[in-house]
Amino acid sequence: MPVLRSVRERFGAERSLEGVRVGACLHITAETATLMRALAAGGAEVALSAANPFSTQDDVAAALVGDGVVVRGVHGEGRSEYEAHLAALVAWGPQLALDDGADLVGGLHRAGVGDGLLGATEETTTGLVRLRAMERDGTLRCPVVAVNEAITERAFNDRYGTGQSALDGILRATHVLLAGRTVVVLGYGWTGRGIALRARGAGASVVVCEVDPFRALEARMEGFGVMPALDAAERGDVFVTVTGAPKVLTRQHFERMKDGALLANAGHFDVEIDLEALVELATGGVRDVRPLVQQHVLADGRRLNLLAGGRVVNLAAAEGHPPEVMDMSFALQALTVERLVREPRVLEPGVHAVPPETDREVARLKLASLGVEIDALTPEQQDYLHSWAP
Amino acid sequence: MPVLRSVRERFGAERSLEGVRVGACLHITAETATLMRALAAGGAEVALSAANPFSTQDDVAAALVGDGVVVRGVHGEGRSEYEAHLAALVAWGPQLALDDGADLVGGLHRAGVGDGLLGATEETTTGLVRLRAMERDGTLRCPVVAVNEAITERAFNDRYGTGQSALDGILRATHVLLAGRTVVVLGYGWTGRGIALRARGAGASVVVCEVDPFRALEARMEGFGVMPALDAAERGDVFVTVTGAPKVLTRQHFERMKDGALLANAGHFDVEIDLEALVELATGGVRDVRPLVQQHVLADGRRLNLLAGGRVVNLAAAEGHPPEVMDMSFALQALTVERLVREPRVLEPGVHAVPPETDREVARLKLASLGVEIDALTPEQQDYLHSWAP
Amino acid sequence: MPVLRSVRERFGAERSLEGVRVGACLHITAETATLMRALAAGGAEVALSAANPFSTQDDVAAALVGDGVVVRGVHGEGRSEYEAHLAALVAWGPQLALDDGADLVGGLHRAGVGDGLLGATEETTTGLVRLRAMERDGTLRCPVVAVNEAITERAFNDRYGTGQSALDGILRATHVLLAGRTVVVLGYGWTGRGIALRARGAGASVVVCEVDPFRALEARMEGFGVMPALDAAERGDVFVTVTGAPKVLTRQHFERMKDGALLANAGHFDVEIDLEALVELATGGVRDVRPLVQQHVLADGRRLNLLAGGRVVNLAAAEGHPPEVMDMSFALQALTVERLVREPRVLEPGVHAVPPETDREVARLKLASLGVEIDALTPEQQDYLHSWAP
Amino acid sequence: MPVLRSVRERFGAERSLEGVRVGACLHITAETATLMRALAAGGAEVALSAANPFSTQDDVAAALVGDGVVVRGVHGEGRSEYEAHLAALVAWGPQLALDDGADLVGGLHRAGVGDGLLGATEETTTGLVRLRAMERDGTLRCPVVAVNEAITERAFNDRYGTGQSALDGILRATHVLLAGRTVVVLGYGWTGRGIALRARGAGASVVVCEVDPFRALEARMEGFGVMPALDAAERGDVFVTVTGAPKVLTRQHFERMKDGALLANAGHFDVEIDLEALVELATGGVRDVRPLVQQHVLADGRRLNLLAGGRVVNLAAAEGHPPEVMDMSFALQALTVERLVREPRVLEPGVHAVPPETDREVARLKLASLGVEIDALTPEQQDYLHSWAP
Repeated sequence: MPVLRSVRERFGAERSLEGVRVGACLHITAETATLMRALAAGGAEVALSAANPFSTQDDVAAALVGDGVVVRGVHGEGRSEYEAHLAALVAWGPQLALDDGADLVGGLHRAGVGDGLLGATEETTTGLVRLRAMERDGTLRCPVVAVNEAITERAFNDRYGTGQSALDGILRATHVLLAGRTVVVLGYGWTGRGIALRARGAGASVVVCEVDPFRALEARMEGFGVMPALDAAERGDVFVTVTGAPKVLTRQHFERMKDGALLANAGHFDVEIDLEALVELATGGVRDVRPLVQQHVLADGRRLNLLAGGRVVNLAAAEGHPPEVMDMSFALQALTVERLVREPRVLEPGVHAVPPETDREVARLKLASLGVEIDALTPEQQDYLHSWAP
Repeated sequence: MPVLRSVRERFGAERSLEGVRVGACLHITAETATLMRALAAGGAEVALSAANPFSTQDDVAAALVGDGVVVRGVHGEGRSEYEAHLAALVAWGPQLALDDGADLVGGLHRAGVGDGLLGATEETTTGLVRLRAMERDGTLRCPVVAVNEAITERAFNDRYGTGQSALDGILRATHVLLAGRTVVVLGYGWTGRGIALRARGAGASVVVCEVDPFRALEARMEGFGVMPALDAAERGDVFVTVTGAPKVLTRQHFERMKDGALLANAGHFDVEIDLEALVELATGGVRDVRPLVQQHVLADGRRLNLLAGGRVVNLAAAEGHPPEVMDMSFALQALTVERLVREPRVLEPGVHAVPPETDREVARLKLASLGVEIDALTPEQQDYLHSWAP
Repeated sequence: MPVLRSVRERFGAERSLEGVRVGACLHITAETATLMRALAAGGAEVALSAANPFSTQDDVAAALVGDGVVVRGVHGEGRSEYEAHLAALVAWGPQLALDDGADLVGGLHRAGVGDGLLGATEETTTGLVRLRAMERDGTLRCPVVAVNEAITERAFNDRYGTGQSALDGILRATHVLLAGRTVVVLGYGWTGRGIALRARGAGASVVVCEVDPFRALEARMEGFGVMPALDAAERGDVFVTVTGAPKVLTRQHFERMKDGALLANAGHFDVEIDLEALVELATGGVRDVRPLVQQHVLADGRRLNLLAGGRVVNLAAAEGHPPEVMDMSFALQALTVERLVREPRVLEPGVHAVPPETDREVARLKLASLGVEIDALTPEQQDYLHSWAP
Repeated sequence: MPVLRSVRERFGAERSLEGVRVGACLHITAETATLMRALAAGGAEVALSAANPFSTQDDVAAALVGDGVVVRGVHGEGRSEYEAHLAALVAWGPQLALDDGADLVGGLHRAGVGDGLLGATEETTTGLVRLRAMERDGTLRCPVVAVNEAITERAFNDRYGTGQSALDGILRATHVLLAGRTVVVLGYGWTGRGIALRARGAGASVVVCEVDPFRALEARMEGFGVMPALDAAERGDVFVTVTGAPKVLTRQHFERMKDGALLANAGHFDVEIDLEALVELATGGVRDVRPLVQQHVLADGRRLNLLAGGRVVNLAAAEGHPPEVMDMSFALQALTVERLVREPRVLEPGVHAVPPETDREVARLKLASLGVEIDALTPEQQDYLHSWAP
């Protein structure tokens, strides 16, 4: 993680986060650990709670604890443990919150301490939907920076990182050959674009389902099939939901699917596939056929295979984002935290974009790490582009 | 042009442009003619001047004249004729201006009548650079809508329309086999993305040159080679400039190029390839080897082939945007003109974005014309996406 | 054409074809002219007749005549002129025949002089089908070398050359935007593969129709849709036949097609689209909408657009193979002619493959012309690969 | 494995292998087990030895033993155990041999019982090189069917199966993000083509190294970079050898590589990366950084990461071919064994191709299993294609 490493070195030298309490509700992985250490290097006190019970790497958690970070989260923990961990984190009184799904910011607001926060970062679309609803309601009391909407996040990490790792998760879980198969991608945001691109790159025929006419048109212009989800249900061999919305695949879709269909979710929450309806429909029984594959047998014998219990497949069945991607993402978060601390109360309560200069700085460092050089505009070109009468 | 056709029908019924004088400085092609007729159907008086001497289709111009449109422009006209035509259009006193390069809006402002305009549309990046410079200087006196920056324009028309037609122009001009060749794309905006995508789709190895770190990083993540233009100069078989900036390929690039290299420009103005330097370097002579290919022979015998005199290759060597693309583009312009007339003086002087609802309306109509149906959010999904506590 | 140029230089020095009469029934294009001149440089007497009335470039024909080559063929000539030209070529008494569709070899055999030939080359699948039928019947009396089945021909020229130029022809004829369209490729031989690859590269969704299970399976594994032609008829926006077989698209297909469908043929003969049935069905009339596009209006108003009268679209609507491709192809022919002359009567009557060493020689020269260097096996590697007990 | 399942059912009904002793030296995986059971269903006595110590799945081996199959092989066994197992299999006296690398056929010949065999199948290029050397030497005494060269094997299984699974192995071993990286594929046979295709599909920039001019030219025409391995050594982030030859990556390549380069082998034997030279060069030490990744630190601090000890990466780091691919491959083997038993002594000693009808039968069954229907030629089309004068 060369970008975050350079940030960490600077933080260690400047100690600009001295004594600031930073609470994080993130996936507990090796990469998150590096972010925690960068913040700690800057002088921050850091506490971490697991954003998802299946993504927790227990050895990482243990190592962080050894480094003095407060960590709460155990692989495979239940709903009540999750909530208890979150409540403890809220009670600890963080001044800044790093969030992945808005649970932490939500919890701090419910506890009535939202307006005491210097600010927060949120890294999921789902979380931002919730935070913007709070903003509209007037209940959001601190600035939140939408790191998820930074260009480096959406155009790079969501697209290339999750694009690769979601399919990687599907391959590890199932060992399916994608060439010759039809992959249905439900949702054509940045992550959906990445999954569609990689599925095609793996030899699949790709169908996209969307509700937004811009995105649907773009998918079509890229050569993908575009159709309503009910039509796609009949054609797909592999389904991947990545919309942020609930009940994207429901009973009426399951009823039309082919024997052997694979169902995976790459959205943040496990709400996109209607799990209840799936189980109800499986009158022929549910059985584990591989470690992360549950086969649901319908009344007529058709078998629908649910991956990772409908949880986000790149984390639950693979290793999440590749480290290179997390490097950019977490460098962005670290630089954003630094700014919220250095310039307190500058941003109004509400959801804010990452400043372009922060974003561009990360892209620049990333290119450098890849050994790629680029040109700069000549003074003559700059003049031309800024004058209206050449 | 099904989208524009439906707009025209509505305009004809509503006559909301009755008596309004609309001046246009656009490429005089069959598609432009359809836009002129849609505006005339709405009751507007329309006058048209050629934006580029090589794109004028004389038969189209003649037919428009027959329909009562004032048209000025002849295929292959010289600089002085061009300026005379533009001056006449300015003198005619348009209330709205449809521009392609900001020459008309510039002319109207130099004539001191900028603040009398209801507004203008501009459809090129180059034009917007100039208009924004005017905005910064405080010399822009009317609202200008940046139709070129509408999503349907950039993400669809620039990328897919120019992507295809620029390569089409290169093929028609040269009959080169792209498979196995190295194509260097200078500039990775929407148009450059489209050209790079299509060049790869044609079997070429593609190298991208960029000055913006975001775009450079994206090109690299898409698998393209990314390097400074001087390095690319040694590798390329085909070069396409599409930056909006002048002197992107200069003497130092020419000196490094391989024998037989093809040089094309897909940017609006013929300033991206340093034509003067190319001719100076061609001590071995310049000769026409195909109708739109001028071979420049360097001192050591290497031959550099300039396409279409460095003019925008998709218009000068092919037929410009395919009609489907122009359909979206011109529907957007027609709807924007209607809005500027219906809601006069609502927009402040300055450069404005196309309102998303106009943009989305075009995407919707386009999908319909392709026979593609899409889903809509269920009420439950809408609620979920708008609430912060599911 | 650097490869053919080097062959021509050697031929000129060695004069090994001195006095040999070579008859050719080929497309009369600039590239064919170069082949003719290479043979003439070797000392051969050369006579040329047009293989297709629409591909003849009259200026090329005129220039060849000026060089002393006997040329028969006029752009757009009718069936009877074609046959008269062929008859004259047969009567001239060639000792070797270069054929494109087996008409010349067929004519020579019907004239009873087949067994006097030193040999022939054939460069189309269609021609080979006919020649192999003759071989089975025992009526083929001379050796014919299937240059069309050389690796450089099939895997390179058919795939990349026709792949690009067939789509180029469709674009020039129609100016259609391929992105977002469904292109149906009927026939997935090397040429069909190339067209499918390039259509996908242009942003189209591609459907393949095949009768061979290997090819159908390969198309599917490449991510293309594969289905019977009747199903594809309902989905396609653009249809390209390239099977070598007659009546691939017939009345029952036309009846299912969408309004605006484009019909093109990339096979050698104009038999793949049932033109008679199409005209019969066009009770609403047939009209020219662009120079090479005839619109057939069905009873219900749907319009089916036939390109180039169903003739091979890359030649009839574009410029045929790019010169680079023809360079390889014609170098192969020249080297084959030389071999048939140098080693007369070595090959038995029948259809023969191009010897691999000739084929490999062409690939080697082509890589050199592209500036590409490759490795060679080390002696240790050669030993390993040739011993069974490493 | 639907294709093999149908074959097994027929075998069970016909019992045409009754009492025949079939020895197999194959990777001991779930798929191999299914082949063993199909042969046993036909009445054969079956014995199995592990072709590779790292691919053995011990639970599979145990289950097969439970089914009465003689199995020899333990995950991670050493060279001497491997040889002892093979010797025991030879001593058992098989009448047919299923081989993966020619070790079993080689052993049987060294034991002097080669001419007693009804025949053998071989499924690797490496094995065939050895067998053809034996054929040339006159030491091969039984017919061997090159199942590896069947169209379904090479064009489907090698390309799509290994293409996907080799990259899958690299991802599982390293969790590298392929987008933006340069992947160097050494060897562009069917497997190399598949790896190159999938690497590009994953967003990598792909460079191919080849010694064969046809293959090198094809790679170039597909848009890949093509260059000598020493040049590629400086550019690559990930290297995959798949040539069948030894010492493809050697000291001089390692010396030029970038810090962090990943080295994987997808060829049958672990000879393609010069492991000895790599260790010698690693004066900074060798350490395990992930379970299957050994980091070799050069004197100047650069780190070269060897995957899976240079063993075939799709088996050693992932799960080998996906089951669908093995289904086709093993159906081909089962049908070939049946033919060797039903038509004993028909084939001469030597290496033979799989008969096209067997091959085509497998493709047909595979398409059926994918739910894909295709057309058949009409009688009129058949007549046309078989007559020379339409």
